Amino acid sequence: MADKMKAVVLHKIDDLRIEEVPAPGAPGPDEVKVRTCNVGVCGSDVHYYKRGRIGDFVVKEPMILGHETGGEVIEVGSNVKNLKVGDKVAMEPGIPCWKCTFCKEGRYNLCQDIFFWATPPDHGSLAEYLVHPADFCFKLPEGVGTDEAAMIEPLAVGVHACNVAGVRPGSTVAVTGAGPIGLLAMQVALAYGATTAIATDVSPSRLALAEKLGAKLTINPAKEDVVKRVLAATEGEGVDMVLECSGAAQAISQSPYLVKPGGTIVWIGMTHPPEVEIDQVRLIINEIRTQGTFRYANAYPIAINLVAAGKVNLQPLITARYPFEKAVEAIDMCSTGKAEQIKVMIDF
Amino acid sequence: MADKMKAVVLHKIDDLRIEEVPAPGAPGPDEVKVRTCNVGVCGSDVHYYKRGRIGDFVVKEPMILGHETGGEVIEVGSNVKNLKVGDKVAMEPGIPCWKCTFCKEGRYNLCQDIFFWATPPDHGSLAEYLVHPADFCFKLPEGVGTDEAAMIEPLAVGVHACNVAGVRPGSTVAVTGAGPIGLLAMQVALAYGATTAIATDVSPSRLALAEKLGAKLTINPAKEDVVKRVLAATEGEGVDMVLECSGAAQAISQSPYLVKPGGTIVWIGMTHPPEVEIDQVRLIINEIRTQGTFRYANAYPIAINLVAAGKVNLQPLITARYPFEKAVEAIDMCSTGKAEQIKVMIDF
Amino acid sequence: MADKMKAVVLHKIDDLRIEEVPAPGAPGPDEVKVRTCNVGVCGSDVHYYKRGRIGDFVVKEPMILGHETGGEVIEVGSNVKNLKVGDKVAMEPGIPCWKCTFCKEGRYNLCQDIFFWATPPDHGSLAEYLVHPADFCFKLPEGVGTDEAAMIEPLAVGVHACNVAGVRPGSTVAVTGAGPIGLLAMQVALAYGATTAIATDVSPSRLALAEKLGAKLTINPAKEDVVKRVLAATEGEGVDMVLECSGAAQAISQSPYLVKPGGTIVWIGMTHPPEVEIDQVRLIINEIRTQGTFRYANAYPIAINLVAAGKVNLQPLITARYPFEKAVEAIDMCSTGKAEQIKVMIDF
Amino acid sequence: MADKMKAVVLHKIDDLRIEEVPAPGAPGPDEVKVRTCNVGVCGSDVHYYKRGRIGDFVVKEPMILGHETGGEVIEVGSNVKNLKVGDKVAMEPGIPCWKCTFCKEGRYNLCQDIFFWATPPDHGSLAEYLVHPADFCFKLPEGVGTDEAAMIEPLAVGVHACNVAGVRPGSTVAVTGAGPIGLLAMQVALAYGATTAIATDVSPSRLALAEKLGAKLTINPAKEDVVKRVLAATEGEGVDMVLECSGAAQAISQSPYLVKPGGTIVWIGMTHPPEVEIDQVRLIINEIRTQGTFRYANAYPIAINLVAAGKVNLQPLITARYPFEKAVEAIDMCSTGKAEQIKVMIDF
Repeated sequence: MADKMKAVVLHKIDDLRIEEVPAPGAPGPDEVKVRTCNVGVCGSDVHYYKRGRIGDFVVKEPMILGHETGGEVIEVGSNVKNLKVGDKVAMEPGIPCWKCTFCKEGRYNLCQDIFFWATPPDHGSLAEYLVHPADFCFKLPEGVGTDEAAMIEPLAVGVHACNVAGVRPGSTVAVTGAGPIGLLAMQVALAYGATTAIATDVSPSRLALAEKLGAKLTINPAKEDVVKRVLAATEGEGVDMVLECSGAAQAISQSPYLVKPGGTIVWIGMTHPPEVEIDQVRLIINEIRTQGTFRYANAYPIAINLVAAGKVNLQPLITARYPFEKAVEAIDMCSTGKAEQIKVMIDF
Repeated sequence: MADKMKAVVLHKIDDLRIEEVPAPGAPGPDEVKVRTCNVGVCGSDVHYYKRGRIGDFVVKEPMILGHETGGEVIEVGSNVKNLKVGDKVAMEPGIPCWKCTFCKEGRYNLCQDIFFWATPPDHGSLAEYLVHPADFCFKLPEGVGTDEAAMIEPLAVGVHACNVAGVRPGSTVAVTGAGPIGLLAMQVALAYGATTAIATDVSPSRLALAEKLGAKLTINPAKEDVVKRVLAATEGEGVDMVLECSGAAQAISQSPYLVKPGGTIVWIGMTHPPEVEIDQVRLIINEIRTQGTFRYANAYPIAINLVAAGKVNLQPLITARYPFEKAVEAIDMCSTGKAEQIKVMIDF
Repeated sequence: MADKMKAVVLHKIDDLRIEEVPAPGAPGPDEVKVRTCNVGVCGSDVHYYKRGRIGDFVVKEPMILGHETGGEVIEVGSNVKNLKVGDKVAMEPGIPCWKCTFCKEGRYNLCQDIFFWATPPDHGSLAEYLVHPADFCFKLPEGVGTDEAAMIEPLAVGVHACNVAGVRPGSTVAVTGAGPIGLLAMQVALAYGATTAIATDVSPSRLALAEKLGAKLTINPAKEDVVKRVLAATEGEGVDMVLECSGAAQAISQSPYLVKPGGTIVWIGMTHPPEVEIDQVRLIINEIRTQGTFRYANAYPIAINLVAAGKVNLQPLITARYPFEKAVEAIDMCSTGKAEQIKVMIDF
Repeated sequence: MADKMKAVVLHKIDDLRIEEVPAPGAPGPDEVKVRTCNVGVCGSDVHYYKRGRIGDFVVKEPMILGHETGGEVIEVGSNVKNLKVGDKVAMEPGIPCWKCTFCKEGRYNLCQDIFFWATPPDHGSLAEYLVHPADFCFKLPEGVGTDEAAMIEPLAVGVHACNVAGVRPGSTVAVTGAGPIGLLAMQVALAYGATTAIATDVSPSRLALAEKLGAKLTINPAKEDVVKRVLAATEGEGVDMVLECSGAAQAISQSPYLVKPGGTIVWIGMTHPPEVEIDQVRLIINEIRTQGTFRYANAYPIAINLVAAGKVNLQPLITARYPFEKAVEAIDMCSTGKAEQIKVMIDF
């Protein structure tokens, strides 16, 4: 096998190139080697590309982008039993330390020593070949493609958010922000039995997609009073949960007025600047729970399951496709025309 | 029995009087009549007295103040089995509707139709006689006095907060604000097995009391960097839980920096103005849970139990006592010299 | 309104009559009067009819049978806001005390002082008119009939069982016993997102119905090895949860071998004699949780919701219908041809 | 360092020898080498010695016994940061796979591929030197000795049981069986805030020790009616939780009658034969939860914490001590005079 491969390398802000890098060697005993088939472009890829950092994570050395990944197993380590050559897989991008309390207690997404694709200084998956732990490569069931496999990653964010929110049959849910995460989280909420899903976004096309995917009500905060409409749609009570996916300060501040007493707000969308005003008295008098969610843990199996069972529909979210050779162009496009695209998919 | 009794009636802002009001009649079949023995003065009493309102609750008609209450049963209704004449009791001040979903699910403190002593328009307990549901009067065990019974009410706030926080053996807890609620919540946390309790307050005397009651570390935010000191005391990790009892905007905003990843902040202290800036990115990246708490549900039995077992010490918190005849003076004093007092107790 | 009405009264074993009894008076302020439209026959009705007792509950005085009830509101009490005359309702048959710890903590089904239709000495609902607390009468949404309303009662048993089991998307569930409760619990599990439902029963017709309603696999324990087949269907792992609805000693004893390590068994079906052999070592080594469930609490709203949303299909379970005048005949039939019937419905 | 060391090797039933075995080499990068200081004798060591098997675990090859271990770090791997040479440690005996769902979800005690000291075919810790993952070696705080470190292992069983049971302040707990596990679980329950602990055992000396360690009531089932006495001590209600540590069929069968409705039974003690009769109707009508517990996960830190804080007292449980040279004699003694001993400690 060749010892070189092509990868999409971010050198510094606005300097992104497809170039040759060393290919990974043979997989270790518990690893597999995968031929990359699809990588989805995530907002974080664009963020590193245009700003060079997210919070404390700063791009100091050239870094391969990409972490939403579907591929095909081409070599398996000696201990690997769950996979064989030829299997198509969805790849979970973080490798935790398994030594800290977070890992041992099942919250490995909080591991402070986790290796995570395309989070500096860790290289990502926008490369032709990958070596990865076999237990973080999940075999695709019949009927799930490698492009969908790539989207299991953002879907896992939605699954984790709904798990943490405690969405259950009969729940009423407002999803603020109908980008990829919002649309996926909303579908998961419906798959979990939510009977009312309300979506908000400033983009009419996103709201239209939200409606198509099951939203009972869509609201454009640029034109309508979100609080009034949500209360009107819930007999004045508010919803059980808000899944805040927009990162917009206004949406964040409004969230406590959308939930009923005893309700839950899940913070998913990063905001900038980070400080946002929250009505603390409202949180107290109504005993509102808020929960930040970061990535996911143990969410891939359920996410794959939901797709295989037809309960989550990924294809309508893929609004543009680019061949690997045009990956830089794909990411460029995301950085400018963001609102019009939901998910841009790169095909190898 | 006389059909008149004396009570402390708030007519309007700054107009508080002891006067004769109609005495309650015979208890209903599931009620008891109680001779009031002690009432503690709460910040909310002072708030209505000096400002006439708390949030949406506005004093429009004359209202009897007081809701922290210990008394002696002097008459029992025909169905009552848990109490007999002569029993000393701690009285839980809220009577929920038992018809709404909150009541049926065990979160009766969120009942929107609850009757609650000294929350407009409901009269309070600063009166010589009270009729109350027997199941909200809890018989005092040996060794617990009626002044302590009155303090079961704020203690129940601390119990509820620790329940919601999930304090358990080995937990590390920061209590911001060492007033009555903070000092009680801290003691409950220690009784629940917390191994490190850190208290903050701007009052040196309150910090001294916190230390006496078990704080391993006390911090004065007017003089010290709370975040630095908490991190230094926890090997850089932060605490498991913050119990925010101060209502100070600074303390609220700092809370996310005091807890470790996966940690919990419980909002207890009301703040004014209600909007406070919170670092949302911190909440997300560290998956911090925040939970507003309002009053309590099902907390009285545990609170009484903790006092009877000697695990919570109430007496050091009673820093002044007044006879009922001087109740107006007592409340007046609270409204001016607040920081120097922890709990002012009225003896009948 | 007439002061007499017809009701189905059990006098003693084998002595069941339709006769005139006093009609209920006007509803109290928080009650409604309902014209009964449908009552389903439950195994417990038959049990009292043929054996005169269930456990410690013994029929000593004449008792009206029936507790699965749908009706129409014909009069409302002065405080009632959630209902009006003409509303069709599903009626939750238990009225708890709201004074004990169980009631206050949201587990009112464990209330030791609960009034419950057709549990001696409390009269049931097989009568023309009923007065009941308004908050235990749930208005039917569009498209749900009063015969389905009657079946909300056994459905609530299934909802409660799935709540307690913690069924969630991706769960694998075995339902042992495909009678009315089993078939309903199975449908609820699927509505909650279970991906694999396995049903067992000795009756081929019940298994056929289970399959029609969504079972991926059905097993007849009279002919097949249930443990082997369940393991074969789950890659040797076992299912996440067993919902034991049969009450058969063999099914109970086998349950620990059907669940995977860390799994859950919910006991729903009463067994006689009550003592059954359980492999304790299996429970320990695999950390299996077992949970008895009794009736339900806070389950009616979700149950109604599932029916209205089309996620649970009740009509196929109604295998026979009788007019009220033939109610004795209906119950007689249940007592003899039980296995061939799922649910016998009485129409008023 | 010498390449040979002495160890206690079980060759087959009744054939136990101290002999020379290969010493472990240098620790790997994430491991430490430990000089063994203390090993406690566990019932399972005796069981393998006298019967050659426990359930499906059969001694087929010579196996070193022992898994309750305290030692001193004598060499650290290159990545190890939490320990240094000279540290005294308590050693958690199981090394899970970190690849299966159980491991990833924080229930690593259910890992089917776990390596566990002295569970065939894995060698145990009754040897002079051990190499072990650093993250499963917990540094002892001031004042905790290596003999106590050895007892952290059975203490962790008690911690896990109380975690699973949900023991909290105010809980009432019955501990059936006052051997080492029972006495430790009882102390943990009290440390967790249980207000009433009731202990049962057929051995008067064990009951005396239970009383000394905090039992409010002790009952000898050989002489007294356990159910009657527990109900009498709890106002007829029963306790909140039973921690079944005896493994006696009678105690197991009685457990459902000791807990109140909604209560919990935790199965800890292995029984033989495994099948025991349980009153299923009681479990159902009272919605009793039962939970098997196997070993522990994430329990060492809390266990050590409880000992360091003086909340659990280990020394009274050490009823005999033997030097390593007499280890065979120690285990022999356990196999014959079991009831009179609580914990036999081997000192290196």
